[in-house]
Amino acid sequence: MTSPAIHPDIAHLSWLLGTWAGKGEGEYPTIESFGYNEETTIGHVGKPFFAYSQKTKHAETGLPLHAEVGYFRPVGTTGLELVVAQPSGIMESHEGAVDGTSLTLTAVTVVTTATAKDVTEVVRKITVDPDAGTLTYTIDMAAVGQPLQHHLAATLHRKP
Amino acid sequence: MTSPAIHPDIAHLSWLLGTWAGKGEGEYPTIESFGYNEETTIGHVGKPFFAYSQKTKHAETGLPLHAEVGYFRPVGTTGLELVVAQPSGIMESHEGAVDGTSLTLTAVTVVTTATAKDVTEVVRKITVDPDAGTLTYTIDMAAVGQPLQHHLAATLHRKP
Repeated sequence: MTSPAIHPDIAHLSWLLGTWAGKGEGEYPTIESFGYNEETTIGHVGKPFFAYSQKTKHAETGLPLHAEVGYFRPVGTTGLELVVAQPSGIMESHEGAVDGTSLTLTAVTVVTTATAKDVTEVVRKITVDPDAGTLTYTIDMAAVGQPLQHHLAATLHRKP
Repeated sequence: MTSPAIHPDIAHLSWLLGTWAGKGEGEYPTIESFGYNEETTIGHVGKPFFAYSQKTKHAETGLPLHAEVGYFRPVGTTGLELVVAQPSGIMESHEGAVDGTSLTLTAVTVVTTATAKDVTEVVRKITVDPDAGTLTYTIDMAAVGQPLQHHLAATLHRKP
């Protein structure tokens, strides 16, 4: 199967594409801090969006921890939308800004199913260093009555 | 890689698991009717949810058409939640009922990004015939000012 060309409406974000693997750390006032191993894939099918999927495993036990899936959608060349669904019953609809090879995404809507934990605010920052082949991100979150604050940080490396 | 055991909280839905491929047809008052080829994968990692991903291609041109990703979450043995994200900027949070090997899922929340089409109601029905190895579904939708009505129907076969 040959890869289609990247759609011109999203070609300016091609630095996001790839399979990325590395390590992260999570913390929140209501839980014990933890380390994790992550693999993230950002791909395309020639249409004006990128498909995003992510899985993490506990750094010590190797057991599956978190996962999420969704899509990046360009809005012109400086804007961006991200929709993300999580097995925890949480969905985030983000609007964001593109600044070079950095993205800042703020959830305009967070949906939680009846049985999910209460999450009210999410801010995601993603930066790619194309020369170093690294993707770093942070996620801030307001959840279970806590104010918006740092939750996750990870550094991933583009797989060959 | 060995497969983990299915989590007991979702083992009663194991008939959903597999890779399913087949054909469907779409119609809506605002568009031309179309045929599509679909591949759907429903998998698990030993935790109490199933990961769902779907891709369709146009029956005639073979070009990528729709895609969606999300998670099924059991609520006891008779209830179900489904969260789904779509590259069209639409996310659906469903609550549903399990009846034998059939599911009826009604969106309690539909989120559309600022640049997405307006979708307000979605009802999904999924039936598996374990003996025949078939999964059939219908999707009803209210969108772009039209009332809730039939939109998609497909019959898929479990791949060996």
